[in-house]
Amino acid sequence: MNSYELRQWQIKEAPFRPFDLAHTETILTIGNGLVGVRGSFEEGYPTDSPTTLLAGIFNHKAGTLVPELVSMPNWLSLTIHVNGEAFRLDQGRILGYERVLNMKTGILTRGVLWLSPNRTILRLAFERFTSLANPHILALRVLIQPLSEGQHQLRMTSALDGRILNPGNVDHWANLHGEVSQDQLFINGTTDQSGYHVAMAAQLLSTHSGEWADESNPRCPAHSLTFQLNQNEKATITKLVSIHSSRDTDDPITAARTTLEQAVEVGYDKLKLDHESAWYDYWDQMDIVIEGDEVAQRAVRFCTYHLLIATPQYDERVSIAAKSLSGFGYKGHVFWDTEFFMLPPLTLAMPEAARRLLMYRYHNLDGARKKARANGYEGAMFPWESTDTGEETTPQWTDPHPVTGERIRIWTGDNEQHISSDIAYAVLQFWQWTGDDAWFVQYGAEIVLDTAVFWASRAEYNAEYDRYELRQQIGPDEYHENVDNSVFTNRLVAWHMQQALNVLDWLHQNHPQAAQRLEAQLNIQPQKWQDIAQKMWINVNQGVLEQFEGFFDRLQPFNLYDYTPRTANMDWILGHEKTQRVRVIKQADVVMLMAILWDELGDHDFLMRNWETYYPVVDHGSSLSPSIHAWVAARLGLLREAYDLFIYAATIDLEDHKGNVRDGIHAACCGGVWQAVVFGFCGLKLRDNEITLDPMLPKHWRRVAFKVVHQGRIIPIEITNT
Amino acid sequence: MNSYELRQWQIKEAPFRPFDLAHTETILTIGNGLVGVRGSFEEGYPTDSPTTLLAGIFNHKAGTLVPELVSMPNWLSLTIHVNGEAFRLDQGRILGYERVLNMKTGILTRGVLWLSPNRTILRLAFERFTSLANPHILALRVLIQPLSEGQHQLRMTSALDGRILNPGNVDHWANLHGEVSQDQLFINGTTDQSGYHVAMAAQLLSTHSGEWADESNPRCPAHSLTFQLNQNEKATITKLVSIHSSRDTDDPITAARTTLEQAVEVGYDKLKLDHESAWYDYWDQMDIVIEGDEVAQRAVRFCTYHLLIATPQYDERVSIAAKSLSGFGYKGHVFWDTEFFMLPPLTLAMPEAARRLLMYRYHNLDGARKKARANGYEGAMFPWESTDTGEETTPQWTDPHPVTGERIRIWTGDNEQHISSDIAYAVLQFWQWTGDDAWFVQYGAEIVLDTAVFWASRAEYNAEYDRYELRQQIGPDEYHENVDNSVFTNRLVAWHMQQALNVLDWLHQNHPQAAQRLEAQLNIQPQKWQDIAQKMWINVNQGVLEQFEGFFDRLQPFNLYDYTPRTANMDWILGHEKTQRVRVIKQADVVMLMAILWDELGDHDFLMRNWETYYPVVDHGSSLSPSIHAWVAARLGLLREAYDLFIYAATIDLEDHKGNVRDGIHAACCGGVWQAVVFGFCGLKLRDNEITLDPMLPKHWRRVAFKVVHQGRIIPIEITNT
Repeated sequence: MNSYELRQWQIKEAPFRPFDLAHTETILTIGNGLVGVRGSFEEGYPTDSPTTLLAGIFNHKAGTLVPELVSMPNWLSLTIHVNGEAFRLDQGRILGYERVLNMKTGILTRGVLWLSPNRTILRLAFERFTSLANPHILALRVLIQPLSEGQHQLRMTSALDGRILNPGNVDHWANLHGEVSQDQLFINGTTDQSGYHVAMAAQLLSTHSGEWADESNPRCPAHSLTFQLNQNEKATITKLVSIHSSRDTDDPITAARTTLEQAVEVGYDKLKLDHESAWYDYWDQMDIVIEGDEVAQRAVRFCTYHLLIATPQYDERVSIAAKSLSGFGYKGHVFWDTEFFMLPPLTLAMPEAARRLLMYRYHNLDGARKKARANGYEGAMFPWESTDTGEETTPQWTDPHPVTGERIRIWTGDNEQHISSDIAYAVLQFWQWTGDDAWFVQYGAEIVLDTAVFWASRAEYNAEYDRYELRQQIGPDEYHENVDNSVFTNRLVAWHMQQALNVLDWLHQNHPQAAQRLEAQLNIQPQKWQDIAQKMWINVNQGVLEQFEGFFDRLQPFNLYDYTPRTANMDWILGHEKTQRVRVIKQADVVMLMAILWDELGDHDFLMRNWETYYPVVDHGSSLSPSIHAWVAARLGLLREAYDLFIYAATIDLEDHKGNVRDGIHAACCGGVWQAVVFGFCGLKLRDNEITLDPMLPKHWRRVAFKVVHQGRIIPIEITNT
Repeated sequence: MNSYELRQWQIKEAPFRPFDLAHTETILTIGNGLVGVRGSFEEGYPTDSPTTLLAGIFNHKAGTLVPELVSMPNWLSLTIHVNGEAFRLDQGRILGYERVLNMKTGILTRGVLWLSPNRTILRLAFERFTSLANPHILALRVLIQPLSEGQHQLRMTSALDGRILNPGNVDHWANLHGEVSQDQLFINGTTDQSGYHVAMAAQLLSTHSGEWADESNPRCPAHSLTFQLNQNEKATITKLVSIHSSRDTDDPITAARTTLEQAVEVGYDKLKLDHESAWYDYWDQMDIVIEGDEVAQRAVRFCTYHLLIATPQYDERVSIAAKSLSGFGYKGHVFWDTEFFMLPPLTLAMPEAARRLLMYRYHNLDGARKKARANGYEGAMFPWESTDTGEETTPQWTDPHPVTGERIRIWTGDNEQHISSDIAYAVLQFWQWTGDDAWFVQYGAEIVLDTAVFWASRAEYNAEYDRYELRQQIGPDEYHENVDNSVFTNRLVAWHMQQALNVLDWLHQNHPQAAQRLEAQLNIQPQKWQDIAQKMWINVNQGVLEQFEGFFDRLQPFNLYDYTPRTANMDWILGHEKTQRVRVIKQADVVMLMAILWDELGDHDFLMRNWETYYPVVDHGSSLSPSIHAWVAARLGLLREAYDLFIYAATIDLEDHKGNVRDGIHAACCGGVWQAVVFGFCGLKLRDNEITLDPMLPKHWRRVAFKVVHQGRIIPIEITNT
């Protein structure tokens, strides 16, 4: 491969960009669905945030608003002293530096040529991965070569550093115990509220023998190995680490020891080969090949990579957080981002993974039912933000505004209720693509039906107009809260009720026992559902879907173009109150509805009128917005807009367009980008259970190729642009 | 154009990268051959270096080693106060920021959405250009729109700031006088040693009338205009500037006033259209279209852009500095960079510009003759570093090493003598491509012949071996100084002597009077020349050209790969003394010879052996190296290496690979990149006065297209890759 081909698989940092550290730490995250590890340096750096997260390990610390993912002991920790001087990039002089994330293999490497303050030249080559073949195994290796004359003393200090706290110095551990046994380290502890037990073990292997010393501190088992190297002589240090928790075993301590023993037995090279082989299979399923556009190709791979490293491989009781396992943004909570943005790519290309994510919602039906009852409704009302318990975990207040200090009441946990239909949509899409009737009958149908039960109890009948309404809602456009008759929500609920009725019919005809079981269990009211499906108010005003009641009449017109160029969101600029009153929307709302329902909404002219109404006023204040707009623009034949929006979305994290990638990857955007290519540019659709394509490719794209799975068959798709 | 097409013409910075300021100031330089203006902000920024340079205005300040280009008064200076608060990007909060250099039009724009410390929101849109239609005219414009409620007071303060000094606070002005006349500013001054007289004039135009005030300081004429703007109201402020010097007129003050009057009369919009139209013609001549490789396309355009903005349009007595007019690196001096790297693209595609650059050397023959005599030789011995006088201006000592404090004797001015043949080579290449016999007879021949006269006096006859030798040379590989029989130099001189003999023959046959004139004037010794051409020692050792005597036997082998990755140069790492003793070379040396003489040196196997000998030991410690290696690798069919080297070279400034772009653009590399495409990948050659192509394109390139001029005819070249 020449550099052109490599660039399409690589994220590269050269030279070192210290000012960009928080951003590169996020984008260079590695992971395997169980573990996410930010791209921090082994030896540390001022202002770094070395973070390892374990899927599903949440804790709700007393005095904080909501539970959050817990920072694990830092297994990367490896300090290198040469002749008594600590290798650190903020000391001495960097003669050369290159960091490369190889997305094809999920391996992060770093090369450094370093001049120490006392003028020793050291060559270092780091490599790390979180095994995709066995997600409980983490590994790093460093090659060290002193290039200065004479003999050099090297001291490697390795730790499992449990002193790492969550942001705001929140300590989620009830206890953490460390232990050292010459070349091995152990740490285990329990989270203080949720009571998860986590254990890690590590072994340091070296090509050079030397003297071991215990270097432990409280909560930080550590050891050092000291040896000599001559000029140009190379040493290789390998650190193998295991991690287990009470989420996957009853005895994490023993499991961590056993997994570590196995890893040492197998050895680094074979672990790496198995890992690479697993990545080969991942890409074989999920890669979208785009020929003729290097930036798009690399960016789409970047998005797919981050979707893949966040996707659980085994666990049905975790989902994917809005910021994946790459940062603390949104505290590791799960939103509709999963069902509308991340799930469709998996449903189409990796259905087993999609099934697990849907099972997460199935297992959390109890939490959803609890929320419905607490709010005076029936059925299943899914939480807007969800963690390990399935209960509503949306905080009720924002953090203080950085300039005004204002704290704002967050209403999404109360009123952004479309999440329940979003989940039903994802279940039905999965069923349609996989044809997995057994799963649907056993699990999926219950989600679709019990969320319909919720809506039947929630919908408000307006006798004056003989219609159903939904008041006090928040649609995708969260700039306007607690509105009446969000057309996105109303239309989706009407669709949902009709789908629920269809499911009922299908069950009666094909699985009568299951139908009986569900009817016995759930408050199914076919007549009322029919009524709601037909009489839900879909507000068409001025020839388009009105986003909510009063959108045209009550909101002040606003010239968004005056605020160009802009990185800050409009609600930040105008303030929360003023934003509510002006006609600027946060993200795809009616346009989101267009993406999923398309010609069910109306003809081409109607769709185009809606686009022309909402596109000029959208702020893209959410990273969920541009990819969906790209998709819809492509379908409307607006290729220039489609491509510009698509590229913006695809590079939102790579280029940090929003300036907030330090908090984690925009995982929903990653999934949205995949969909923008497949549904938008390629026009993939299932019609009457047949795969159809309607390509509208950017004219410089020569070829697009990917695979989808339809009812168990792998279908290669290839579109060449002529 | 969608963003894909735009990106190939744009250099974009979004969001603001303050840590990268010095780099972006360089790459966003605008210019027109007469004036170069770094991309500094109008309102200033801490650590910025607002620099306007005027081609040929050198001054040798007492107490400094050598002359350098003089920093002109800063015409960009424009401060914007809103309600008493100064707009500055290090104050308040940036809500949006985008800077774009449109290479197609040579226009730099900046959009800013800014929140002042007192919470006024301001939208600003800047635009600037240095007219290509009339290089004495500079223009900038800013649109201002307050977006906060209420009425706002705007105060625009504009200056021609002569307080700007050269690096190290060197003040080159004997005097600088400022003057203000309401909406106009004037400044003029004289350089203290060289005595150049420079005058600038400026006029501020506003859509809004208001109150003028004189805001001058010594050496800094300035005025302010204060007016009111309501919320959302837009104002446009235009600053038109003229610049003249005693290099272009006897009366710069009157010329500056007259040019300004004309500019104001014509108006900004028309000035901009004429400027864009001139750029259209520039690109029509010089653009290389590469389809299928966005990175390469943009990078090649970037290189061509920087070559174009540095190329004099009228003046025959200036050349292009190693760092163009974009920074103070190498103090604005002219090297072989012009003749071997920048001239060939111009010779092929814009021969009039090439002719002017060759005339610079012709006009400086006196300086070259003076240098020859001072060193005890005859003929014309061109200076290694040249300024306005044509005299040798290479400093004799380096600046102190940043770590060791060591100062090192620079020998290039004494011993890097190949420059004289490099110039002869450029003259002959120009003659060959243009077929401009009249020019050659009148000017070019004298350069070729009088530099041959120099070599005839310089070459040392070694009776023992019956051969000519050249001792105490420096070849392109400056890591090894004062070597004997640099094979690059010896071989080039042998070629030069033969060419000189051919020129003589041709003159005798076709222009006998000119032959007589030159024979009367110059010490032409055909017999000796013939002898030197035949008997110059070309040292072949171990089956390859030995770079210099003892290269294989006396230098220590060195494993350059151990020093990976590396940004620092090896001579910096090893120190000057040690570098002399090891087999690591700075740049293409034998490989440079291969690039220009190719199969005149030997057959394919011989060339490949030379490549395999020198490629593993080249440090690319000079930015001149990678593009030439790319060219040669392409010719050898080593496409992977060729592409990697080419992309590295093409992005050397854009991505700041060497970490030194703050000092200016690597202008030679820009020219080398153009050659790597045309001579390397496309294999363009003149054989028997016919244009031939031998394409070896990277396989993902779909199409390459450019134009060359052969003997007055424009020849479109197009290669499609099938």
